[in-house]
Amino acid sequence: MPRPLTLHPDRLLPNEPAVRGIARELHASVADLPIVSPHGHTDPAWFATNAPFGNATELLLVPDHYLFRMLYSQGIRLEDLGISGHEADPRAAWRILAENYHLFRGTPSRIWLDWVFAEAFGIDVQLDSETADHYYDTITEKLATEAFRPRALFDRYNIEVIATTEGPLDTLDHHRAIAASDWGGRVITAYRPDPVVDPEFEGFADNLARLSQVSGEDCSHWAGYLAAHRAMRAVFKAAGATSTDHGHPTARTADLPAGEAQALFDRVKGGNASAADAELFRAQMLTEMAAMSVEDGLVMQIHPGSFRNHNATLFERFGRDKGADIPTRTDYVHALKPLLDRFGAERDLSIILFTLDESAYARELAPLAGHYPCLRLGPAWWFHDSPEGMRRFRLMTTETAGFYNTVGFNDDTRAFLSIPARHDVARRIDCGFLAQLVAEHRIEDWEAAELARELAYDLAKRAYRL
Amino acid sequence: MPRPLTLHPDRLLPNEPAVRGIARELHASVADLPIVSPHGHTDPAWFATNAPFGNATELLLVPDHYLFRMLYSQGIRLEDLGISGHEADPRAAWRILAENYHLFRGTPSRIWLDWVFAEAFGIDVQLDSETADHYYDTITEKLATEAFRPRALFDRYNIEVIATTEGPLDTLDHHRAIAASDWGGRVITAYRPDPVVDPEFEGFADNLARLSQVSGEDCSHWAGYLAAHRAMRAVFKAAGATSTDHGHPTARTADLPAGEAQALFDRVKGGNASAADAELFRAQMLTEMAAMSVEDGLVMQIHPGSFRNHNATLFERFGRDKGADIPTRTDYVHALKPLLDRFGAERDLSIILFTLDESAYARELAPLAGHYPCLRLGPAWWFHDSPEGMRRFRLMTTETAGFYNTVGFNDDTRAFLSIPARHDVARRIDCGFLAQLVAEHRIEDWEAAELARELAYDLAKRAYRL
Amino acid sequence: MPRPLTLHPDRLLPNEPAVRGIARELHASVADLPIVSPHGHTDPAWFATNAPFGNATELLLVPDHYLFRMLYSQGIRLEDLGISGHEADPRAAWRILAENYHLFRGTPSRIWLDWVFAEAFGIDVQLDSETADHYYDTITEKLATEAFRPRALFDRYNIEVIATTEGPLDTLDHHRAIAASDWGGRVITAYRPDPVVDPEFEGFADNLARLSQVSGEDCSHWAGYLAAHRAMRAVFKAAGATSTDHGHPTARTADLPAGEAQALFDRVKGGNASAADAELFRAQMLTEMAAMSVEDGLVMQIHPGSFRNHNATLFERFGRDKGADIPTRTDYVHALKPLLDRFGAERDLSIILFTLDESAYARELAPLAGHYPCLRLGPAWWFHDSPEGMRRFRLMTTETAGFYNTVGFNDDTRAFLSIPARHDVARRIDCGFLAQLVAEHRIEDWEAAELARELAYDLAKRAYRL
Repeated sequence: MPRPLTLHPDRLLPNEPAVRGIARELHASVADLPIVSPHGHTDPAWFATNAPFGNATELLLVPDHYLFRMLYSQGIRLEDLGISGHEADPRAAWRILAENYHLFRGTPSRIWLDWVFAEAFGIDVQLDSETADHYYDTITEKLATEAFRPRALFDRYNIEVIATTEGPLDTLDHHRAIAASDWGGRVITAYRPDPVVDPEFEGFADNLARLSQVSGEDCSHWAGYLAAHRAMRAVFKAAGATSTDHGHPTARTADLPAGEAQALFDRVKGGNASAADAELFRAQMLTEMAAMSVEDGLVMQIHPGSFRNHNATLFERFGRDKGADIPTRTDYVHALKPLLDRFGAERDLSIILFTLDESAYARELAPLAGHYPCLRLGPAWWFHDSPEGMRRFRLMTTETAGFYNTVGFNDDTRAFLSIPARHDVARRIDCGFLAQLVAEHRIEDWEAAELARELAYDLAKRAYRL
Repeated sequence: MPRPLTLHPDRLLPNEPAVRGIARELHASVADLPIVSPHGHTDPAWFATNAPFGNATELLLVPDHYLFRMLYSQGIRLEDLGISGHEADPRAAWRILAENYHLFRGTPSRIWLDWVFAEAFGIDVQLDSETADHYYDTITEKLATEAFRPRALFDRYNIEVIATTEGPLDTLDHHRAIAASDWGGRVITAYRPDPVVDPEFEGFADNLARLSQVSGEDCSHWAGYLAAHRAMRAVFKAAGATSTDHGHPTARTADLPAGEAQALFDRVKGGNASAADAELFRAQMLTEMAAMSVEDGLVMQIHPGSFRNHNATLFERFGRDKGADIPTRTDYVHALKPLLDRFGAERDLSIILFTLDESAYARELAPLAGHYPCLRLGPAWWFHDSPEGMRRFRLMTTETAGFYNTVGFNDDTRAFLSIPARHDVARRIDCGFLAQLVAEHRIEDWEAAELARELAYDLAKRAYRL
Repeated sequence: MPRPLTLHPDRLLPNEPAVRGIARELHASVADLPIVSPHGHTDPAWFATNAPFGNATELLLVPDHYLFRMLYSQGIRLEDLGISGHEADPRAAWRILAENYHLFRGTPSRIWLDWVFAEAFGIDVQLDSETADHYYDTITEKLATEAFRPRALFDRYNIEVIATTEGPLDTLDHHRAIAASDWGGRVITAYRPDPVVDPEFEGFADNLARLSQVSGEDCSHWAGYLAAHRAMRAVFKAAGATSTDHGHPTARTADLPAGEAQALFDRVKGGNASAADAELFRAQMLTEMAAMSVEDGLVMQIHPGSFRNHNATLFERFGRDKGADIPTRTDYVHALKPLLDRFGAERDLSIILFTLDESAYARELAPLAGHYPCLRLGPAWWFHDSPEGMRRFRLMTTETAGFYNTVGFNDDTRAFLSIPARHDVARRIDCGFLAQLVAEHRIEDWEAAELARELAYDLAKRAYRL
């Protein structure tokens, strides 16, 4: 006898009845607002080709490192899940997920998936080993229908705008195809130059050579390299981009004299940079990117602090991005000073800071964002993109940065099906936080209602200049 | 139609009715206790001259970096607020605050200001752009009355004692004038020697020269320099001081052999110290100050971890203390060891530790204060002087340090009008925390009542030897 | 008139009535499960000889550094408490504790002691200066009875298995005596090689010499030293051990080429290692221990991050472990990589990580344990073994590591009498956390019931291979 699956209307709201009542009203006022998704990793090919998604496993399990990292942590082999081109029977892989669904109790993945199952696919029983095949068949059949094509889901999900992330070497063909189509969905790109900015990125020297080709600028010298960035940013901006994104190991910035920057570039361009030179070059490039943002108005996102591909064995066998990225302690106060010394007073510059180190929320990030006009705080990110993480974010940043130095919510996901689920979680948690402030008599109910809308919708649009 | 402004009697108390009921009773028992304010930055000239305060802007906005840092973070120019001698129409500046009052939603500034508006000035409508002039006029008019002179407010606020903070070069004339007056208010000083202890302080070498003058000791050599401190501490103690205060970038201490200390002083005294020497000298001076505290009984406060004047552009144009101080990660365990190795066993020494790095609460500070007889924990400080910050302080220190190794509350403010508001917040939060312990059946109600009084009043008096 | 002492049945459960109701049911379902205590510091001699415990002070105060560190922090002399062989009248020492019992308000020690007083000894009045003698007499008298012998308490406490901790130089005679006795209690050992692994341990060189003796391997060279570990691990395993334990200052690991490891051993074996060599040797030995665990299946516990014996004066006069251990900031991401690079993919290796640095919970530990198959998270440890600390542990690790990458609870105590109290606290807090998830509609009630049992009992048994 399968157990019923239902999404309770009060899920994630505060427990105390009076506070919950306030939260319910706030949530009702924002639950149906369109989704603004200014930072994520969906594939523009989906919306360009509008081809149907494959099966349940291919869509929901294989690309979601939140899921397969947890399964791997309990001894399940990635090969058995069909990760990274390893052959695996998708139905068998799905059964592994189903049998181990208890591992996700208390995690955000459980919340997101249950939403996808119940809301997106209309399934009304819990996922477990007995319902695994029912799930696999139901999902896979629905994915073959018109209603589950990417554009149809985009429209049904009430997405106002979504940003994907591309590197400078990307042709943006999919974005052009979307723009040229008769479909009205707004899918824009974001400029993420890590492959040509990080001397430790695989194939860095080759990437520079290709950057010369695509940009028409000579990247064998510093001035040409900078010109190539300028050119590609213009291309991205023309394709709709309003932001850049920078995923560095640290938040370090530098502001070297031109001659030193040039010499540094000459040392790293061959792809054999020392670790210290690589770090300094990335640091210098954040400041160069800020300089270009002052010129072209692209909003700058900094995502620091992830030790990428920590599991050496896994990296050798499966490559990048297999759930083995681990956060590290991250300094912002000293790291950002060179950039801020140069551009901190630029009133048209907008930099959105993220962190994987929550100890920086109250100590560094809220004080920085609560002071510098160019700084805003991105929402709770990645490992902290959970109900608890979102609560900690508000509890530790609001006192010093307020709400208006934050940018609302962005989902940062490649799991397209769960995007509304993630916004739903954020809206519920933020409404709960606001309800608490009302219940403590710190703000009025009408103020909470204004803020609920800001956090769910308006702040993201303004911060990302959408 | 302006919106009403009221202070709810249950504000900041727990939401769950049973816990709130306990908290209400606890709060009622301490709400009217006198205010002990052993650390702050009010101006003794106010109480010495008893001259009326100026207008609303001059009193409430210009000196409050919590306010203008938030306005600045949203692109408002400090010049338009009249900061640091820049000419600005005070009424126009007040209107800017009023129009942007929504920025403070969820911050402690909002709580403090609403208290000042409602309780101190009797205003009964919310501050917004429409009520801005009403506010400006009401406040400015009341400030011209006898009831709003500094001494009258001090008495009305039921302040038992307040400490200001002065450097060794201060003449303490105002304190002498207060003592010689027929007014009974107790306004004492605290010895804050940063300008003559920190080789990186502006004008350090000149400050030493002036220290020689005021102390009558020859500060061109190490022994004379130490003698000057001893002399000035005695002067401060005679003027009522019971404590010293040290605002260092880090908590580092050192205990150099006498010869090395002397050589270090000779290297730094000219004002051209290297960064390493400056840091080492500050470290050595904390230990020297502890040695003097063992002699003269002054309680020692250490306020480490602020990266001062982080915004280079702002510092050049407006000088120190313009809301651009940013906390940094702070180590205590290794940093304090030299001092503690020498004086950790001194039972008459009392050192109050503060932090801007909350990650040290449970990890370092509570274990240190829960062990060393000379150490006590200061309350949640500065950026953490919020309802959330105060809750985190108790939640992370009580388990290991208990309540009796903390010093109750001090407000650390120059915003004189809001001092009762800050104590009100602290008393409510602490009573809420105690009510929670009662509701969880961890302490009895009579114990909570004892503790509520300790936290609101007694602990501060004992810790600061008042 | 003494105040009554009662343990409320709802103590430590959530306050909100609906959530409390769920928590009550969950707790009722696990309250009577046997105690699994896989890591602690009880004395096997107790169970081997079954001799009666001494007086109240000797049993409850003198060995409990949680208690005497707090008394010491308020100026009480350890000599007056009879610590470390200093003569003191035990009744007088007990009176000191009683007079100062208010210092423990809000601490876990208060919860544990009240449980011991009420449940273990049946005392029905609060401890204070007036009831001090009543307590002392009641406890001391009961300790002389059969019912309070160690084995009787072990049985009454429903302990299924308890692990003690011994060094390689320990003879394990007590464990052999227990095994040979007719008593059925399961008391096992754990291999804690710090005295022969840490070159900075007192008497390291002598310890190596003794290790040669007891193991029959020649520890004057690297290969013999490793063989000695293998031999002693086998001895410990034969005596019931299922785990090893490593209490290092940091979590650093190393994986040196064999020649370098040998040269390093040669540099440190004489007992005069540099600090850097000592740290590197400990790091290398964690990896060597992991290699041996892959062979012999012993679960590996790593307890890093304590600055031991921080109080120099106290260490000189009273020796190790006098409540002056202070946590420090601890890195795991870089520190563990050498070990994980070598053994991260070993599916039979099991490493349980602990921390005294809670900032690592969400940032480093949960992501590591939520990925690497060999890693599990130990419960909130030592200073964090409090209701607040346990809540923080679940709030910061569950989102990323889930429940199944944690190991339930272990008490880590030498305070034998309070072991059930500690498990009672953990069960209540975990049930409260689960009730919250149910109340937020994140998991079903039957899932919470499964998890409650896992956290209270099953996870620890599996993780420690009991």
